[in-house]
Amino acid sequence: MNPDSLIPFRVRDLAAYVPGEQINRPGVIKLNTNENPYPPSPTVAEALAQVSGDALRLYPDPLAREVCGILADLHGVKPGQILAGNGSDEVLALCTRAFVQPGQGIGYLDPSYSLYPVLTAIHGARMTPVPLNQAFQWEPGPAPANCPLFFITNPNAPTGMLHDREVVAAFCRSYQGVVVIDEAYVDFATDTCLDLARTLPNVLVTRTLSKSYALAGIRFGYAVGNSELIGALYKLKDSYNLNLLTQKAAAAALRDQAWMKNLVERIRATREAFVGELVRLGFSTFPSETNFVWTRPPDHLSAPDLYQALKRQDILIRHFSPPGLREHVRITIGTDEQMATLARALQNLCA
Amino acid sequence: MNPDSLIPFRVRDLAAYVPGEQINRPGVIKLNTNENPYPPSPTVAEALAQVSGDALRLYPDPLAREVCGILADLHGVKPGQILAGNGSDEVLALCTRAFVQPGQGIGYLDPSYSLYPVLTAIHGARMTPVPLNQAFQWEPGPAPANCPLFFITNPNAPTGMLHDREVVAAFCRSYQGVVVIDEAYVDFATDTCLDLARTLPNVLVTRTLSKSYALAGIRFGYAVGNSELIGALYKLKDSYNLNLLTQKAAAAALRDQAWMKNLVERIRATREAFVGELVRLGFSTFPSETNFVWTRPPDHLSAPDLYQALKRQDILIRHFSPPGLREHVRITIGTDEQMATLARALQNLCA
Repeated sequence: MNPDSLIPFRVRDLAAYVPGEQINRPGVIKLNTNENPYPPSPTVAEALAQVSGDALRLYPDPLAREVCGILADLHGVKPGQILAGNGSDEVLALCTRAFVQPGQGIGYLDPSYSLYPVLTAIHGARMTPVPLNQAFQWEPGPAPANCPLFFITNPNAPTGMLHDREVVAAFCRSYQGVVVIDEAYVDFATDTCLDLARTLPNVLVTRTLSKSYALAGIRFGYAVGNSELIGALYKLKDSYNLNLLTQKAAAAALRDQAWMKNLVERIRATREAFVGELVRLGFSTFPSETNFVWTRPPDHLSAPDLYQALKRQDILIRHFSPPGLREHVRITIGTDEQMATLARALQNLCA
Repeated sequence: MNPDSLIPFRVRDLAAYVPGEQINRPGVIKLNTNENPYPPSPTVAEALAQVSGDALRLYPDPLAREVCGILADLHGVKPGQILAGNGSDEVLALCTRAFVQPGQGIGYLDPSYSLYPVLTAIHGARMTPVPLNQAFQWEPGPAPANCPLFFITNPNAPTGMLHDREVVAAFCRSYQGVVVIDEAYVDFATDTCLDLARTLPNVLVTRTLSKSYALAGIRFGYAVGNSELIGALYKLKDSYNLNLLTQKAAAAALRDQAWMKNLVERIRATREAFVGELVRLGFSTFPSETNFVWTRPPDHLSAPDLYQALKRQDILIRHFSPPGLREHVRITIGTDEQMATLARALQNLCA
């Protein structure tokens, strides 16, 4: 028996997952995956140290009630309006399965988070990208047909820009399906659409502790919104989708809002200084509301060459090869020291 | 807009998840969810204590290479023949999505792990239970039609019995689809079918650290088998499905095989002594190869009454209400002290 014959074409045709560059050897400046350059709240380590071996032998709370309670208080909703997931990636995948039948379409802005077409293919749904204009801005037209689910990354990735809340709100109000507003980077931004998830029956907002809370390692994301939509996600999730350690770490981090806000302030200040440097060097940089910048090098320096030149100096940034993206690079905001090193490297390359 | 109208019938018709009884107040003897009564290897706490806040800010290894390498060595396979999951529940769910198209059937023995029909319904597949006989034994007949996936829990739950390996092997060899042998309890048993996953192109074996390794709290399970089948699971999994803490805890626990084997020996000894007590009290008990026993109380004591009477004494065991199961109870093996308390309670109820 050929094992290939046991795998449906839907799955056989999927691209195998290729992990991104995770070069973590000492000395490498890692500005390619939008991680926070600072450690999480020390209360996280304290909470983890209190988890005994005897606690680990037991199943965790399948409803993650402690952390969902904290989130409900934080966002002014009922606990039943929160679903906590194994990273917001799990929450986004659950949305495809909860709201879309295979064969139907899933809409998303293009470019935005590259996971949406992957999840669409996995679910056997139809990819329905809605292109942004050449300035990476959204000029809403007619909603795509037969798409019961639409993803909006806001602020957007990899562009870093915030879509206008009135544009987003008008789209949600008229959309005949579920709209998921993926606010992975919102803590770095000047506005949020969380109120739409609180007030509209068809809107969910997703968030993550991976960026602003500096906890990509624990895998914690969540959705906020209408309790019936949230209830549909609960029906589909693995019963024990969140291990005990992640639940405890997330609860501790969420209780220390001051720590997160301080990290965000530092990164925003570094971002503004770094953007100033890019402007001086002739880069075309888009207004960032995130912990990264999306920028186009000056004409004499192509984006792929820049990426390679920095990599040779152990500075990792992100370059995307699809047309429309390949003239730009995405640079995560690191520490002031890391960004100063990068700035010197850019000055040399532009000299 | 009614949010209900945004949810497909497939999802609307699913039963909402109802968490099991997790009464953890002090003094309760918890013998209802097959947790290990002893703590995990102390090397787990040591490994967790070494995870710094600075490590938690980074994404974990999406391929869990350290722990997959340990598992490959342990089982004599290549790392590409291992997929590590967020509990074996995630691995089982991935199998439904990787090998079955919605509308096709998923086969499983009945009774066995109650998750299989749930996963079948979630995937929009057809439930195809194959009944065991009245003694809960498998008398293989013709394989069910149009079922590209078949689950076998071995040793079985909730009966605790091991299916004969020749019966399982013959079934796998003739089956025209993927067979998943769910060995969640195998460390407590006298035999394994892991060799079938190593040699047959259509067999995967799944395992978990929740029972024998006393780590239900970390959510770690895995599949072993043909690299093409495993590759299909990789294509579907969330990229970062395993957080860093779970990866580190699992690696430490798997390196301490002696600790796990010692826990297993203690539980097996307690199990044999407790089964002797049940026999003396007139219970009909099935031969257990797991960390629980499946038993039918003597005629004057019904299973639901027994369950309720013990619950009033803060001893939790498991009673299943479906016909064919409701005359029995499932009792997890706890410590010697816990089982002595339970034995005294049973003696009083049978007096």
